[in-house]
Amino acid sequence: METKNEKKVSIMKEQIIKTAVECMKKEGLKFSLDMLAEKMKISKKTIYKYFPCKEILAREIYQAYYDGLDKRSAELLASQHLSEEEKSKELLSVYFESVRMNRDDIFNKFNLNDLIRGYASQRQNGIWAAISPQLGKSLNAKETASLRVILDGAFEKMLQGKSGGEEVFSLLGRLI
Amino acid sequence: METKNEKKVSIMKEQIIKTAVECMKKEGLKFSLDMLAEKMKISKKTIYKYFPCKEILAREIYQAYYDGLDKRSAELLASQHLSEEEKSKELLSVYFESVRMNRDDIFNKFNLNDLIRGYASQRQNGIWAAISPQLGKSLNAKETASLRVILDGAFEKMLQGKSGGEEVFSLLGRLI
Repeated sequence: METKNEKKVSIMKEQIIKTAVECMKKEGLKFSLDMLAEKMKISKKTIYKYFPCKEILAREIYQAYYDGLDKRSAELLASQHLSEEEKSKELLSVYFESVRMNRDDIFNKFNLNDLIRGYASQRQNGIWAAISPQLGKSLNAKETASLRVILDGAFEKMLQGKSGGEEVFSLLGRLI
Repeated sequence: METKNEKKVSIMKEQIIKTAVECMKKEGLKFSLDMLAEKMKISKKTIYKYFPCKEILAREIYQAYYDGLDKRSAELLASQHLSEEEKSKELLSVYFESVRMNRDDIFNKFNLNDLIRGYASQRQNGIWAAISPQLGKSLNAKETASLRVILDGAFEKMLQGKSGGEEVFSLLGRLI
């Protein structure tokens, strides 16, 4: 059983990760530990107390981020209220969010090591495995693999800030 | 009027560039000056005689490469024999080839400077301006801009060797 102190530590860790994920989503490459500390009204030193090195913090952020996407895609896939088209459209957005955190831009900016890169790829593959049967409903296996190449490429371009979003999404929607 | 010697020099330069473009197309990132010299059965020193620095050689290679693509796209657009669909399909390939030489992978591998990068972008924009009215025939202006984001992204992914080609092309064909 958790002691009272252990409980306090795990709540604090959870809050740091939750805030970090929100911050990361909102700020992207502008995210920093200073920003996170300020948002939580604690010092960076306190963050380091809970997460002794950047890799551990990054790994937990990635885990929480992708757990959230897994949950969202499972909900969408199980939904009784959405049409097939709406489901696919929402799942496209989930996949977009999974590409967001699995990019050289991010890894390089925050100097993340190969373990994190590998972990992010693995989680993204997991999301694709879960959602591709829905997205590829009207496609054969090779076409579904091609769809992923197209989505990966287009989403990376969008995330590099080279273009507006909605129009690209709706054009991509014609593929599924 | 060109003297006999000037004529000889310009023929030699042209042959070097032509061979370099072929080599580049075939070998991509494996291209090297050693390879070019060997193929032409001349020494690297001879190449340097005609092209005193790498930037000059690179610029001429890029110019010849994109001139070739401009010519090909003009021919396709003017063709009386191809159906609209065939034209668009062929133009997709031309655009793919224009992305091939305008990528960080290439610029970094050969240590090419910003002038070359800017030149390649400008030529690629020129190709897009020429072919997008055909590719975007069934699209509005925003959709056509989105199409470019998708093609840029998908073609870069393909060129990173992360996937087979034909299937992706045919799926992209559904967008136009």
